[in-house]
Order: sequence, then structure tokens, then C-alpha cells
Amino acid sequence: LSHRCHHRSTAMLDVPFLPFCAFLGTLGLLCMAMVGTWCQHWRGGFSLDGSSRTFNWHPVLMVAGLVVLYGTAALVYRIPSTWSGPKLPWKVLHGGLALGAFVLTVLGLAAVFRFHNSQGTPNMYSLHSWMGLVTVLLFSCQWAAGFGAFLLPWAPAWLRALYKPIHVFFGSTILMLSVASCVSGINEKLFFSLKNGTTAYKLLPAEAVFANTLGLLILVFGVLVVAALARPSWKRPDSDSPDSRQ
Amino acid sequence: LSHRCHHRSTAMLDVPFLPFCAFLGTLGLLCMAMVGTWCQHWRGGFSLDGSSRTFNWHPVLMVAGLVVLYGTAALVYRIPSTWSGPKLPWKVLHGGLALGAFVLTVLGLAAVFRFHNSQGTPNMYSLHSWMGLVTVLLFSCQWAAGFGAFLLPWAPAWLRALYKPIHVFFGSTILMLSVASCVSGINEKLFFSLKNGTTAYKLLPAEAVFANTLGLLILVFGVLVVAALARPSWKRPDSDSPDSRQ
Repeated sequence: LSHRCHHRSTAMLDVPFLPFCAFLGTLGLLCMAMVGTWCQHWRGGFSLDGSSRTFNWHPVLMVAGLVVLYGTAALVYRIPSTWSGPKLPWKVLHGGLALGAFVLTVLGLAAVFRFHNSQGTPNMYSLHSWMGLVTVLLFSCQWAAGFGAFLLPWAPAWLRALYKPIHVFFGSTILMLSVASCVSGINEKLFFSLKNGTTAYKLLPAEAVFANTLGLLILVFGVLVVAALARPSWKRPDSDSPDSRQ
Repeated sequence: LSHRCHHRSTAMLDVPFLPFCAFLGTLGLLCMAMVGTWCQHWRGGFSLDGSSRTFNWHPVLMVAGLVVLYGTAALVYRIPSTWSGPKLPWKVLHGGLALGAFVLTVLGLAAVFRFHNSQGTPNMYSLHSWMGLVTVLLFSCQWAAGFGAFLLPWAPAWLRALYKPIHVFFGSTILMLSVASCVSGINEKLFFSLKNGTTAYKLLPAEAVFANTLGLLILVFGVLVVAALARPSWKRPDSDSPDSRQ
């Protein structure tokens, strides 16, 4: 009864899932285009020589991997066609997209470590770096535990049922942490880059407006993915499926 | 059926609400003690003279208001004794705590504007400030709309039912944004403060370790509050109560 009441009272707020995904995909592509444009147009472009042009891979790969591709992987089980038929192909898609996100993330970390090491700058001192590392460590645990529990065949059903809500909880948490890491990183990079003469950050040059807007769009993307994951009517009605039944 | 299955499969993860709240309260007080200690011990203490000692009220008031007191207000309806009997006293408590959080937040904004104005520094240029202002604007809309819809007597039941999930969604979203704002602000302040000689941020002096730890604890506090709000078994079973029934 209360479930039906809830659905009736929120019917006016119902958004169809696929148009929402089209909007979210556009927003994710916009974030990637903007972070690429920022690094290409204002920060000197890309290279592998250890200079700040090597650093520029860091924001691009982090936004692409730990935000956009990660968010895509997280939403796989909200596609209605995943709710029936064999689960294995969807599990492989979910795990594969997450693995792709993880590879981009590790390359993004490699870019900033290579830049620091070639400049003689210490690694891992800022709050941004601490939070980012916590995020990536949680992500690696999440991927390994998800692979072991849900893709390998030998986890017992009770273990899958026990671990599933933990996996779901950390799925959203890691995305929130990664968005917070992106925002603090963009903020920090702008303070590093815009400190001299007429282009100081505090005078809000075009680059600052552009990158601040990018930060807000990343926040909107993350909030929308977390909201979509939490929305009861978009969840797979599968609590009694073999995977999670005791 | 699926509801019961869900409850059975997660029974092993059940945490009692009140010990969780005691832990969360301790964590919130620890965050407030740490932000106060940071500003008092390393940043020169507090005053109202427009110097950086005026700025120091900003982090203290934001952590106290927009994180700890806000989180407390958000959790009121998770206390089981709010689930029966008259709702009005609990609504007044929820709205009153949120109003207290809002007042501290506005004072925290006043501190940083007064500091900037007396130093001739522009306001509202960094991504931290944009994100923070978005957070505070959303919070003010949230409070006003909640007051108008749920505390004033003349909102019709269908409007309350329609608005309630929106209010709940923005409740968690605003807390996530405020935590992300705090983290980017602490990061930015450490880059401002620790740039000379032997205390540079990149050498990780005691202040940097202390404030980085504070940032991570604020993140943990925010994640735990959002997780507690999302936990199905801690929600008030009231979808068919007079307030939200059409």
C-alpha cells in the first residue's frame, strides 16, 4: 500500500529514463570537451615530456575515467532491458566499463606523478591528493570485490546478498568523492596557474570563468548520476533473483 | 515480498540507529574542535577587525553550520520516536535546527566578505566560492520552501506530497555540495597559508597533516549522514500519513 501511495504521489515528477540518459550523456561529453579545451587552449596542450603538458593529461583522464565513464558503468543496471534474461552479459558490460574507468584513472595518476617527479615536486601532500588517493583506493577495492563476488562463479549466494548493498553504497560514495576531488583539483590548478599580472584568478579572466563552469557542470553530472541510482522506480526489481536471494 | 527479502539479506549489516548517532555526533564535534584548533593554534585566532583573524570565523562557522548542524537537522526524522504522535514538534525541531544552521552559514559568509572587503580582495572568483554560493542559495530555497509547504498550514496535501521527495533529494544534495565546498576551501586555504620557507604545504608540516585530516573527517561525516538518510530501514514508514497522502 505505502509503495503504491508513494508512486502515485510522485507520478507528476516521473522522468523517463532514456531521455534522462541522453541528457546525462550530453552533459558528460560536454564536461570532457570542456576539460580538453581548457588544457589545450589555455594550459598549453598535451605531451609526455614530464612538463606541465604532461600534467594536462591528469584532469582530462580523471574527468573521463573517474567521473564520466564511471558514471556510465554505475548506471548499467538502471537500463530496463537488463532486468530480464541472462545477467552475465550485463555484468560483463558493467565490470568492463568500470575497468575502463579504472585504467583511465591509473593513467591519470601516472601523469601527475610523472610531472611531479620530473619537476622535483613532492607527491601526495595536498588535501586534493589525499582525497583523490582515498577515492582511487576505494575504487580498486570496489572493482576487485565486485569481480570476485559477482563475476567469478564460486561466491556463495549468501555472500553475494550480503555484499551487494555494500557494493551499491560504495558505488555512489566513490562517485561523490571523485566529483569532490575534481572540484578541489580544478580550484587548486587555477590558483597555481593564474597568479601573475592581468590574468590573476581573482580578476576572473575567461579561463577562470570557463574552468569554474566546468567544475559546476561536473558537480551537476555527479549529483544527477547519484540521484538516478537512488531513484526507487528506476531500480531493477530483483531482490528475489538468484544472485541476491539467500 | 521483495521488501522482506531485502531486509533478510541485509540483516547481518544492521547497525542500531542510536549508537550510530552517538558515533556521528562524536565525529561532528571532533570536526568542530579540529577546525577551531586549526584557526586558533596555526592561523592566529579570532577577531572582528577585518584581518585574517576575521577570516578564521569562516571555516569554523561553515563546518559548524553547513555540515554538523545541517547534518543534525537532516537526521531528525530518522529518530524512531518521531514516527508516531503529533508531527508538529518534530517539524519545528527540524526547521529550527536548519534555521540555526542557516544563520551560522550566513555569519560564515559575512566573515569572508568582510575579510575580502577590508583587504581589497575581490569576492566570488574561485570555484570554491561559486560552489559555496550555489550551496547556500539552494539551502535558502530549501528552507523557505520547506517552511512554506510543511510548517505553514495552508499548503494542500497534494502539493506537500509532490514537494516532499524534492525536499528529501535536495536535503542530501546540499550536504554533499557543502562537504565538497569545505574540502576545496581547506585545500585552497592551505595553499594560501603555507607557501613560504620551511612551512610550505608541499613539505607537509604538522598544520597540513592536521587540516588534511580534518578535510577527510568532514568527508566521512557527510558520507555517513547521506548514507543514513538513504537507508531504507531507518526511514519513517509514513508514505500514507496525512501529510503526504493525496
